[in-house]
Amino acid sequence: MEPPATTRLKLTVHYDGSGFHGWQLQPDHRTVQGELERALSRLADSPRRVLSAGRTDAGVHATGQVAAVDMPSSWTADRVRRSLNAVLPADVWIERAAEASPEFHPRFDALARSYSYTVGLRPEAASPFHRRWCWPLCAPLDAGRLRRTTRTIVGEHSFRAFSKAGQPERGERCRVAEASWSEHPIGVELRITADRYLHHMVRYLVGTLVDVARGRRPSGDVARLLHSDPDLTTSPPAPPQGLFLRSVTYAESAPHPHSSKPSSRRSPSPA
Amino acid sequence: MEPPATTRLKLTVHYDGSGFHGWQLQPDHRTVQGELERALSRLADSPRRVLSAGRTDAGVHATGQVAAVDMPSSWTADRVRRSLNAVLPADVWIERAAEASPEFHPRFDALARSYSYTVGLRPEAASPFHRRWCWPLCAPLDAGRLRRTTRTIVGEHSFRAFSKAGQPERGERCRVAEASWSEHPIGVELRITADRYLHHMVRYLVGTLVDVARGRRPSGDVARLLHSDPDLTTSPPAPPQGLFLRSVTYAESAPHPHSSKPSSRRSPSPA
Repeated sequence: MEPPATTRLKLTVHYDGSGFHGWQLQPDHRTVQGELERALSRLADSPRRVLSAGRTDAGVHATGQVAAVDMPSSWTADRVRRSLNAVLPADVWIERAAEASPEFHPRFDALARSYSYTVGLRPEAASPFHRRWCWPLCAPLDAGRLRRTTRTIVGEHSFRAFSKAGQPERGERCRVAEASWSEHPIGVELRITADRYLHHMVRYLVGTLVDVARGRRPSGDVARLLHSDPDLTTSPPAPPQGLFLRSVTYAESAPHPHSSKPSSRRSPSPA
Repeated sequence: MEPPATTRLKLTVHYDGSGFHGWQLQPDHRTVQGELERALSRLADSPRRVLSAGRTDAGVHATGQVAAVDMPSSWTADRVRRSLNAVLPADVWIERAAEASPEFHPRFDALARSYSYTVGLRPEAASPFHRRWCWPLCAPLDAGRLRRTTRTIVGEHSFRAFSKAGQPERGERCRVAEASWSEHPIGVELRITADRYLHHMVRYLVGTLVDVARGRRPSGDVARLLHSDPDLTTSPPAPPQGLFLRSVTYAESAPHPHSSKPSSRRSPSPA
Protein backbone atom coordinates (compact mmCIF):
# COMPACT_ATOMS: atom_id res chain seq x y z
CA MET A 1 0.00 0.00 0.00
CA GLU A 2 1.27 3.48 -0.88
CA PRO A 3 1.97 5.75 2.08
CA PRO A 4 -0.45 8.70 2.08
CA ALA A 5 0.65 11.87 0.29
CA THR A 6 2.16 14.43 2.65
CA THR A 7 2.48 18.20 2.70
CA ARG A 8 5.44 19.96 4.30
CA LEU A 9 4.32 22.60 6.77
CA LYS A 10 6.32 25.51 8.17
CA LEU A 11 5.49 26.22 11.82
CA THR A 12 6.34 29.37 13.81
CA VAL A 13 6.79 28.26 17.41
CA HIS A 14 6.87 30.12 20.75
CA TYR A 15 8.15 28.41 23.88
CA ASP A 16 9.05 29.25 27.43
CA GLY A 17 12.38 27.45 27.80
CA SER A 18 12.20 27.32 31.62
CA GLY A 19 10.77 23.83 31.70
CA PHE A 20 12.78 22.30 28.84
CA HIS A 21 16.20 20.76 28.39
CA GLY A 22 16.47 22.78 25.19
CA TRP A 23 15.03 22.18 21.74
CA GLN A 24 16.70 18.94 20.67
CA LEU A 25 15.18 15.53 21.27
CA GLN A 26 16.76 13.67 24.18
CA PRO A 27 15.65 10.27 25.40
CA ASP A 28 15.33 11.03 29.12
CA HIS A 29 14.56 14.74 29.15
CA ARG A 30 11.66 16.98 28.31
CA THR A 31 12.49 18.94 25.13
CA VAL A 32 10.51 21.16 22.76
CA GLN A 33 11.18 18.90 19.79
CA GLY A 34 10.02 15.93 21.85
CA GLU A 35 6.73 17.61 22.81
CA LEU A 36 6.08 18.76 19.24
CA GLU A 37 6.82 15.35 17.72
CA ARG A 38 4.64 13.62 20.28
CA ALA A 39 1.72 15.98 19.55
CA LEU A 40 2.12 15.79 15.76
CA SER A 41 2.47 11.99 15.81
CA ARG A 42 -0.73 11.82 17.82
CA LEU A 43 -2.58 14.02 15.31
CA ALA A 44 -1.20 12.17 12.27
CA ASP A 45 -1.57 8.79 13.97
CA SER A 46 1.94 7.87 12.80
CA PRO A 47 5.46 8.96 13.82
CA ARG A 48 6.40 12.50 12.76
CA ARG A 49 9.89 13.99 12.68
CA VAL A 50 10.36 17.77 13.10
CA LEU A 51 13.17 19.89 11.62
CA SER A 52 14.09 23.27 13.11
CA ALA A 53 15.99 26.44 12.28
CA GLY A 54 18.38 25.78 15.14
CA ARG A 55 18.76 24.03 18.45
CA THR A 56 18.29 26.30 21.42
CA ASP A 57 19.99 25.41 24.71
CA ALA A 58 18.31 24.47 27.97
CA GLY A 59 16.49 27.48 29.42
CA VAL A 60 16.52 29.54 26.19
CA HIS A 61 13.15 30.82 24.93
CA ALA A 62 11.66 31.47 21.49
CA THR A 63 8.96 33.60 19.96
CA GLY A 64 10.10 32.86 16.41
CA GLN A 65 11.55 29.36 16.17
CA VAL A 66 10.78 27.85 12.77
CA ALA A 67 10.04 24.15 12.39
CA ALA A 68 9.00 21.93 9.49
CA VAL A 69 7.01 18.72 9.46
CA ASP A 70 5.45 16.51 6.79
CA MET A 71 1.79 15.87 7.54
CA PRO A 72 -0.77 13.74 5.68
CA SER A 73 -2.21 16.06 3.02
CA SER A 74 -5.69 15.76 4.51
CA TRP A 75 -4.45 18.07 7.27
CA THR A 76 -4.65 21.75 6.26
CA ALA A 77 -2.14 24.14 7.80
CA ASP A 78 -4.85 25.90 9.76
CA ARG A 79 -6.24 22.67 11.15
CA VAL A 80 -2.74 21.60 12.25
CA ARG A 81 -2.20 24.94 14.03
CA ARG A 82 -5.52 24.78 15.89
CA SER A 83 -5.21 21.10 16.77
CA LEU A 84 -1.61 21.47 17.95
CA ASN A 85 -2.52 24.40 20.20
CA ALA A 86 -5.29 22.28 21.70
CA VAL A 87 -3.00 19.37 22.60
CA LEU A 88 0.40 20.99 23.28
CA PRO A 89 1.40 21.77 26.88
CA ALA A 90 0.95 25.39 28.04
CA ASP A 91 4.63 26.29 27.53
CA VAL A 92 4.62 25.71 23.73
CA TRP A 93 2.40 27.59 21.28
CA ILE A 94 2.11 27.65 17.50
CA GLU A 95 1.73 31.16 16.13
CA ARG A 96 1.49 30.23 12.45
CA ALA A 97 1.39 27.20 10.18
CA ALA A 98 1.77 27.50 6.42
CA GLU A 99 2.30 25.18 3.48
CA ALA A 100 5.92 25.08 2.34
CA SER A 101 7.83 23.57 -0.53
CA PRO A 102 8.58 19.83 -0.04
CA GLU A 103 12.29 20.74 0.04
CA PHE A 104 11.96 23.56 2.56
CA HIS A 105 14.56 23.08 5.32
CA PRO A 106 14.29 25.52 8.24
CA ARG A 107 18.00 25.32 9.05
CA PHE A 108 19.70 25.14 5.65
CA ASP A 109 17.38 27.68 4.00
CA ALA A 110 17.72 30.29 6.76
CA LEU A 111 19.44 33.50 5.66
CA ALA A 112 19.61 35.07 9.13
CA ARG A 113 18.42 34.59 12.68
CA SER A 114 17.62 37.28 15.21
CA TYR A 115 17.96 36.86 18.95
CA SER A 116 17.23 39.19 21.83
CA TYR A 117 18.88 39.21 25.23
CA THR A 118 17.36 41.06 28.19
CA VAL A 119 19.52 42.30 31.05
CA GLY A 120 17.46 43.30 34.11
CA LEU A 121 18.83 46.43 35.79
CA ARG A 122 15.87 47.52 37.91
CA PRO A 123 15.13 45.65 41.17
CA GLU A 124 11.82 44.29 39.72
CA ALA A 125 13.92 42.16 37.37
CA ALA A 126 14.08 39.70 40.30
CA SER A 127 10.29 39.54 40.61
CA PRO A 128 8.25 36.47 39.57
CA PHE A 129 7.04 38.34 36.46
CA HIS A 130 10.54 38.93 35.09
CA ARG A 131 13.19 36.67 36.62
CA ARG A 132 12.51 33.74 34.28
CA TRP A 133 13.03 35.89 31.19
CA CYS A 134 16.05 38.04 31.90
CA TRP A 135 19.45 38.08 33.54
CA PRO A 136 18.51 39.69 36.86
CA LEU A 137 21.74 41.64 37.21
CA CYS A 138 20.03 44.41 39.22
CA ALA A 139 23.15 46.56 39.18
CA PRO A 140 23.96 49.82 37.39
CA LEU A 141 25.92 49.85 34.16
CA ASP A 142 27.17 52.50 31.75
CA ALA A 143 24.65 52.36 28.88
CA GLY A 144 26.75 54.61 26.62
CA ARG A 145 29.80 52.39 27.04
CA LEU A 146 27.64 49.32 26.43
CA ARG A 147 26.28 50.75 23.16
CA ARG A 148 29.64 51.99 21.87
CA THR A 149 31.42 48.69 22.60
CA THR A 150 28.63 46.66 21.00
CA ARG A 151 29.16 48.46 17.67
CA THR A 152 32.54 46.68 17.48
CA ILE A 153 30.91 43.33 16.81
CA VAL A 154 28.86 44.42 13.78
CA GLY A 155 30.32 43.09 10.52
CA GLU A 156 32.10 39.87 9.64
CA HIS A 157 34.52 38.52 12.24
CA SER A 158 35.86 35.29 13.67
CA PHE A 159 33.87 34.74 16.86
CA ARG A 160 35.96 31.77 17.97
CA ALA A 161 36.82 33.42 21.29
CA PHE A 162 33.08 33.84 21.95
CA SER A 163 32.15 30.18 21.73
CA LYS A 164 32.18 27.08 23.84
CA ALA A 165 35.67 25.53 23.72
CA GLY A 166 36.29 22.31 21.83
CA GLN A 167 33.18 22.32 19.69
CA PRO A 168 33.32 21.05 16.13
CA GLU A 169 32.53 23.99 13.88
CA ARG A 170 32.07 24.58 10.20
CA GLY A 171 34.29 27.64 10.43
CA GLU A 172 34.29 30.48 12.90
CA ARG A 173 33.30 33.46 10.85
CA CYS A 174 29.88 35.05 11.31
CA ARG A 175 28.40 38.12 9.68
CA VAL A 176 26.60 40.25 12.27
CA ALA A 177 24.13 42.50 10.46
CA GLU A 178 22.72 44.18 13.55
CA ALA A 179 23.66 44.41 17.22
CA SER A 180 22.09 47.18 19.28
CA TRP A 181 20.63 47.79 22.70
CA SER A 182 17.29 49.39 23.43
CA GLU A 183 15.41 50.31 26.58
CA HIS A 184 13.31 47.60 28.20
CA PRO A 185 10.80 48.12 31.06
CA ILE A 186 13.16 46.41 33.51
CA GLY A 187 16.55 47.18 31.94
CA VAL A 188 18.10 46.92 28.50
CA GLU A 189 17.65 44.52 25.61
CA LEU A 190 20.14 43.49 22.95
CA ARG A 191 18.88 42.70 19.48
CA ILE A 192 21.34 40.79 17.33
CA THR A 193 20.95 39.49 13.78
CA ALA A 194 23.57 37.31 12.07
CA ASP A 195 23.82 34.75 9.29
CA ARG A 196 25.04 32.13 11.79
CA TYR A 197 26.18 31.75 15.39
CA LEU A 198 28.76 29.66 17.20
CA HIS A 199 27.76 27.67 20.26
CA HIS A 200 26.81 29.96 23.20
CA MET A 201 28.03 32.94 21.16
CA VAL A 202 25.32 35.44 22.16
CA ARG A 203 25.67 34.54 25.82
CA TYR A 204 29.49 34.98 25.73
CA LEU A 205 29.07 38.30 23.92
CA VAL A 206 26.54 39.57 26.48
CA GLY A 207 28.65 38.37 29.44
CA THR A 208 31.69 40.23 28.11
CA LEU A 209 29.83 43.39 26.98
CA VAL A 210 28.14 43.68 30.38
CA ASP A 211 31.51 43.38 32.15
CA VAL A 212 32.80 46.22 29.95
CA ALA A 213 29.71 48.30 30.74
CA ARG A 214 30.20 47.68 34.48
CA GLY A 215 33.79 48.90 34.23
CA ARG A 216 35.23 45.48 35.01
CA ARG A 217 37.32 45.25 31.86
CA PRO A 218 38.47 47.67 29.14
CA SER A 219 36.24 48.37 26.15
CA GLY A 220 39.12 47.44 23.80
CA ASP A 221 38.96 43.81 24.97
CA VAL A 222 36.08 43.10 22.60
CA ALA A 223 38.08 44.07 19.49
CA ARG A 224 41.09 42.12 20.80
CA LEU A 225 38.93 39.02 21.33
CA LEU A 226 37.56 39.39 17.78
CA HIS A 227 41.21 39.32 16.62
CA SER A 228 41.73 36.15 18.66
CA ASP A 229 44.31 37.72 20.97
CA PRO A 230 45.74 34.62 22.72
CA ASP A 231 46.29 36.53 25.99
CA LEU A 232 42.60 37.21 26.54
CA THR A 233 39.51 35.19 27.35
CA THR A 234 35.90 36.27 27.45
CA SER A 235 33.89 36.82 30.60
CA PRO A 236 31.61 33.94 31.68
CA PRO A 237 28.54 33.51 29.47
CA ALA A 238 25.37 35.34 30.48
CA PRO A 239 22.71 32.95 31.83
CA PRO A 240 20.35 31.27 29.32
CA GLN A 241 17.04 32.65 30.60
CA GLY A 242 17.63 36.15 29.11
CA LEU A 243 17.95 34.76 25.56
CA PHE A 244 15.10 34.56 23.03
CA LEU A 245 15.17 33.31 19.44
CA ARG A 246 13.01 36.04 17.87
CA SER A 247 12.89 35.41 14.13
CA VAL A 248 14.40 33.53 11.22
CA THR A 249 14.64 35.07 7.77
CA TYR A 250 14.13 33.09 4.55
CA ALA A 251 14.30 34.09 0.93
CA GLU A 252 10.73 32.89 0.65
CA SER A 253 9.70 35.82 2.83
CA ALA A 254 9.98 37.83 -0.40
CA PRO A 255 6.88 38.09 -2.59
CA HIS A 256 8.38 35.62 -5.07
CA PRO A 257 7.51 31.95 -4.55
CA HIS A 258 10.12 29.89 -2.76
CA SER A 259 12.36 27.95 -5.10
CA SER A 260 11.84 24.26 -4.65
CA LYS A 261 15.11 23.33 -6.35
CA PRO A 262 17.25 21.27 -3.94
CA SER A 263 20.40 22.59 -5.61
CA SER A 264 19.64 26.08 -4.27
CA ARG A 265 19.51 24.88 -0.69
CA ARG A 266 23.02 25.66 0.43
CA SER A 267 23.42 28.95 -1.43
CA PRO A 268 20.26 30.56 -0.17
CA SER A 269 20.71 34.11 -1.45
CA PRO A 270 17.55 35.82 -2.71
CA ALA A 271 16.99 35.44 -6.42
CA MET B 1 11.38 36.10 80.73
CA GLU B 2 10.19 39.09 78.69
CA PRO B 3 9.50 38.36 75.03
CA PRO B 4 11.96 40.27 72.82
CA ALA B 5 10.91 43.72 71.64
CA THR B 6 9.39 43.66 68.15
CA THR B 7 9.09 46.14 65.31
CA ARG B 8 6.13 46.15 62.92
CA LEU B 9 7.26 46.06 59.30
CA LYS B 10 5.27 46.97 56.22
CA LEU B 11 6.09 44.73 53.24
CA THR B 12 5.25 45.35 49.57
CA VAL B 13 4.78 41.93 47.99
CA HIS B 14 4.70 40.67 44.36
CA TYR B 15 3.39 37.22 43.55
CA ASP B 16 2.47 35.14 40.55
CA GLY B 17 -0.87 33.70 41.64
CA SER B 18 -0.71 30.77 39.18
CA GLY B 19 0.69 28.36 41.74
CA PHE B 20 -1.32 29.50 44.77
CA HIS B 21 -4.76 28.83 46.21
CA GLY B 22 -4.99 32.56 46.83
CA TRP B 23 -3.55 34.71 49.59
CA GLN B 24 -5.23 33.38 52.69
CA LEU B 25 -3.74 30.63 54.87
CA GLN B 26 -5.36 27.24 54.29
CA PRO B 27 -4.30 24.04 56.02
CA ASP B 28 -3.96 21.79 52.97
CA HIS B 29 -3.17 24.24 50.18
CA ARG B 30 -0.24 26.33 49.09
CA THR B 31 -1.05 30.01 49.76
CA VAL B 32 0.97 33.23 49.68
CA GLN B 33 0.29 33.94 53.35
CA GLY B 34 1.42 30.42 54.18
CA GLU B 35 4.71 30.80 52.30
CA LEU B 36 5.39 34.21 53.84
CA GLU B 37 4.63 33.08 57.39
CA ARG B 38 6.78 29.99 56.99
CA ALA B 39 9.73 32.09 55.71
CA LEU B 40 9.35 34.80 58.38
CA SER B 41 8.98 32.23 61.18
CA ARG B 42 12.16 30.58 59.99
CA LEU B 43 14.04 33.90 60.01
CA ALA B 44 12.67 34.95 63.43
CA ASP B 45 13.01 31.43 64.81
CA SER B 46 9.50 31.72 66.26
CA PRO B 47 5.97 31.70 64.75
CA ARG B 48 5.06 34.87 62.82
CA ARG B 49 1.58 35.95 61.76
CA VAL B 50 1.14 38.17 58.67
CA LEU B 51 -1.65 40.72 58.07
CA SER B 52 -2.54 41.87 54.56
CA ALA B 53 -4.42 44.62 52.73
CA GLY B 54 -6.82 42.08 51.30
CA ARG B 55 -7.24 38.44 50.38
CA THR B 56 -6.77 37.74 46.72
CA ASP B 57 -8.49 34.73 45.18
CA ALA B 58 -6.83 31.66 43.71
CA GLY B 59 -4.99 32.57 40.51
CA VAL B 60 -4.98 36.33 41.13
CA HIS B 61 -1.60 38.09 41.03
CA ALA B 62 -0.08 41.07 42.85
CA THR B 63 2.65 43.62 42.30
CA GLY B 64 1.52 45.77 45.22
CA GLN B 65 0.03 43.62 47.97
CA VAL B 66 0.81 45.14 51.38
CA ALA B 67 1.52 42.94 54.38
CA ALA B 68 2.55 43.62 57.97
CA VAL B 69 4.53 41.48 60.40
CA ASP B 70 6.08 41.99 63.83
CA MET B 71 9.73 40.96 63.82
CA PRO B 72 12.30 40.93 66.64
CA SER B 73 13.75 44.43 66.68
CA SER B 74 17.24 43.09 65.93
CA TRP B 75 16.00 42.59 62.36
CA THR B 76 16.23 45.78 60.30
CA ALA B 77 13.73 46.27 57.48
CA ASP B 78 16.45 45.95 54.87
CA ARG B 79 17.80 42.73 56.35
CA VAL B 80 14.30 41.25 56.42
CA ARG B 81 13.77 42.14 52.74
CA ARG B 82 17.07 40.62 51.61
CA SER B 83 16.73 37.51 53.77
CA LEU B 84 13.12 36.92 52.69
CA ASN B 85 14.03 37.17 49.02
CA ALA B 86 16.79 34.62 49.61
CA VAL B 87 14.47 32.03 51.17
CA LEU B 88 11.07 32.64 49.50
CA PRO B 89 10.07 30.49 46.50
CA ALA B 90 10.53 32.03 43.05
CA ASP B 91 6.87 33.06 42.70
CA VAL B 92 6.89 35.49 45.67
CA TRP B 93 9.13 38.54 45.90
CA ILE B 94 9.46 41.40 48.40
CA GLU B 95 9.88 44.77 46.69
CA ARG B 96 10.12 46.89 49.84
CA ALA B 97 10.22 46.55 53.61
CA ALA B 98 9.87 49.56 55.91
CA GLU B 99 9.33 50.21 59.58
CA ALA B 100 5.71 51.04 60.40
CA SER B 101 3.81 52.19 63.45
CA PRO B 102 3.03 49.33 65.89
CA GLU B 103 -0.68 49.91 65.17
CA PHE B 104 -0.34 49.89 61.38
CA HIS B 105 -2.96 47.56 59.88
CA PRO B 106 -2.69 47.00 56.11
CA ARG B 107 -6.42 46.31 55.71
CA PHE B 108 -8.10 48.73 58.12
CA ASP B 109 -5.74 51.62 57.35
CA ALA B 110 -6.08 51.32 53.56
CA LEU B 111 -7.76 54.30 51.88
CA ALA B 112 -7.94 52.77 48.40
CA ARG B 113 -6.78 49.78 46.38
CA SER B 114 -5.94 49.69 42.68
CA TYR B 115 -6.32 46.62 40.50
CA SER B 116 -5.57 46.03 36.85
CA TYR B 117 -7.25 43.52 34.56
CA THR B 118 -5.72 42.54 31.21
CA VAL B 119 -7.89 41.26 28.37
CA GLY B 120 -5.84 39.63 25.60
CA LEU B 121 -7.19 40.49 22.14
CA ARG B 122 -4.23 39.60 19.91
CA PRO B 123 -3.50 35.93 19.13
CA GLU B 124 -0.20 36.06 21.12
CA ALA B 125 -2.31 36.40 24.28
CA ALA B 126 -2.52 32.59 24.15
CA SER B 127 1.29 32.20 24.07
CA PRO B 128 3.29 30.93 27.07
CA PHE B 129 4.53 34.47 27.75
CA HIS B 130 1.04 35.92 28.21
CA ARG B 131 -1.63 33.30 28.87
CA ARG B 132 -0.97 33.07 32.61
CA TRP B 133 -1.46 36.82 33.08
CA CYS B 134 -4.45 37.74 31.00
CA TRP B 135 -7.87 36.58 29.85
CA PRO B 136 -6.92 35.19 26.44
CA LEU B 137 -10.15 36.26 24.74
CA CYS B 138 -8.41 36.59 21.34
CA ALA B 139 -11.52 38.10 19.76
CA PRO B 140 -12.29 41.62 18.52
CA LEU B 141 -14.23 44.07 20.67
CA ASP B 142 -15.44 47.64 20.29
CA ALA B 143 -12.92 49.65 22.32
CA GLY B 144 -14.97 52.86 22.15
CA ARG B 145 -18.05 51.10 23.49
CA LEU B 146 -15.91 49.48 26.22
CA ARG B 147 -14.53 52.86 27.33
CA ARG B 148 -17.88 54.67 27.26
CA THR B 149 -19.68 51.95 29.21
CA THR B 150 -16.91 51.76 31.79
CA ARG B 151 -17.41 55.44 32.68
CA THR B 152 -20.81 54.44 34.11
CA ILE B 153 -19.21 52.68 37.07
CA VAL B 154 -17.12 55.65 38.29
CA GLY B 155 -18.58 57.20 41.44
CA GLU B 156 -20.39 55.73 44.44
CA HIS B 157 -22.84 52.91 43.69
CA SER B 158 -24.20 49.71 45.12
CA PHE B 159 -22.24 46.95 43.43
CA ARG B 160 -24.36 44.16 44.90
CA ALA B 161 -25.21 42.80 41.44
CA PHE B 162 -21.47 42.54 40.69
CA SER B 163 -20.57 40.25 43.57
CA LYS B 164 -20.65 36.60 44.48
CA ALA B 165 -24.14 35.73 45.72
CA GLY B 166 -24.77 34.99 49.36
CA GLN B 167 -21.64 36.61 50.78
CA PRO B 168 -21.79 38.38 54.12
CA GLU B 169 -20.97 42.01 53.44
CA ARG B 170 -20.48 45.15 55.44
CA GLY B 171 -22.69 47.02 53.00
CA GLU B 172 -22.68 47.05 49.23
CA ARG B 173 -21.65 50.58 48.38
CA CYS B 174 -18.21 51.24 46.91
CA ARG B 175 -16.70 54.49 45.71
CA VAL B 176 -14.89 53.97 42.40
CA ALA B 177 -12.38 56.79 41.95
CA GLU B 178 -10.98 55.59 38.63
CA ALA B 179 -11.94 53.01 36.02
CA SER B 180 -10.35 53.33 32.60
CA TRP B 181 -8.91 51.16 29.84
CA SER B 182 -5.55 51.66 28.19
CA GLU B 183 -3.69 49.90 25.41
CA HIS B 184 -1.61 46.86 26.35
CA PRO B 185 0.89 45.06 24.06
CA ILE B 186 -1.51 42.11 23.71
CA GLY B 187 -4.88 43.82 24.15
CA VAL B 188 -6.42 46.23 26.64
CA GLU B 189 -5.97 46.77 30.36
CA LEU B 190 -8.47 48.10 32.90
CA ARG B 191 -7.17 50.14 35.80
CA ILE B 192 -9.65 50.50 38.65
CA THR B 193 -9.26 52.26 42.00
CA ALA B 194 -11.88 52.11 44.75
CA ASP B 195 -12.14 52.47 48.51
CA ARG B 196 -13.40 48.88 48.79
CA TYR B 197 -14.57 45.95 46.65
CA LEU B 198 -17.19 43.26 47.00
CA HIS B 199 -16.18 39.63 46.44
CA HIS B 200 -15.22 38.97 42.78
CA MET B 201 -16.43 42.48 41.92
CA VAL B 202 -13.70 43.37 39.40
CA ARG B 203 -14.08 40.03 37.61
CA TYR B 204 -17.88 40.43 37.35
CA LEU B 205 -17.44 44.01 36.08
CA VAL B 206 -14.91 42.91 33.43
CA GLY B 207 -17.05 39.94 32.34
CA THR B 208 -20.06 42.20 31.85
CA LEU B 209 -18.17 45.12 30.25
CA VAL B 210 -16.48 42.77 27.76
CA ASP B 211 -19.87 41.29 26.81
CA VAL B 212 -21.13 44.83 26.14
CA ALA B 213 -18.01 45.61 24.07
CA ARG B 214 -18.55 42.41 22.05
CA GLY B 215 -22.13 43.45 21.30
CA ARG B 216 -23.59 40.60 23.32
CA ARG B 217 -25.67 42.83 25.58
CA PRO B 218 -26.78 46.47 25.59
CA SER B 219 -24.53 49.14 27.07
CA GLY B 220 -27.41 50.30 29.32
CA ASP B 221 -27.29 47.00 31.25
CA VAL B 222 -24.41 48.25 33.38
CA ALA B 223 -26.38 51.24 34.71
CA ARG B 224 -29.41 49.01 35.28
CA LEU B 225 -27.28 46.52 37.24
CA LEU B 226 -25.90 49.39 39.35
CA HIS B 227 -29.53 50.25 40.16
CA SER B 228 -30.09 46.60 41.16
CA ASP B 229 -32.66 45.97 38.43
CA PRO B 230 -34.13 42.62 39.57
CA ASP B 231 -34.69 41.48 35.96
CA LEU B 232 -30.99 41.47 35.09
CA THR B 233 -27.92 39.48 36.07
CA THR B 234 -24.30 40.09 35.22
CA SER B 235 -22.30 38.09 32.71
CA PRO B 236 -20.06 35.34 34.14
CA PRO B 237 -16.98 36.67 35.94
CA ALA B 238 -13.79 37.10 33.91
CA PRO B 239 -11.16 34.47 34.79
CA PRO B 240 -8.82 35.19 37.74
CA GLN B 241 -5.51 35.15 35.87
CA GLY B 242 -6.04 38.59 34.26
CA LEU B 243 -6.36 40.30 37.66
CA PHE B 244 -3.50 42.03 39.51
CA LEU B 245 -3.57 43.87 42.84
CA ARG B 246 -1.38 46.84 41.85
CA SER B 247 -1.24 49.20 44.83
CA VAL B 248 -2.75 50.12 48.17
CA THR B 249 -2.95 53.73 49.34
CA TYR B 250 -2.46 54.80 52.96
CA ALA B 251 -2.63 58.16 54.68
CA GLU B 252 0.97 57.54 55.75
CA SER B 253 1.97 57.90 52.08
CA ALA B 254 1.67 61.62 52.77
CA PRO B 255 4.77 63.42 54.05
CA HIS B 256 3.26 63.66 57.55
CA PRO B 257 4.16 60.85 59.94
CA HIS B 258 1.56 58.13 60.31
CA SER B 259 -0.66 58.53 63.34
CA SER B 260 -0.14 55.70 65.75
CA LYS B 261 -3.41 56.32 67.62
CA PRO B 262 -5.55 53.16 67.46
CA SER B 263 -8.68 55.34 67.57
CA SER B 264 -7.84 56.67 64.10
CA ARG B 265 -7.75 53.20 62.60
CA ARG B 266 -11.25 52.97 61.25
CA SER B 267 -11.57 56.57 60.09
CA PRO B 268 -8.43 56.68 58.02
CA SER B 269 -8.84 60.03 56.31
CA PRO B 270 -5.66 62.08 55.87
CA ALA B 271 -4.99 64.55 58.68
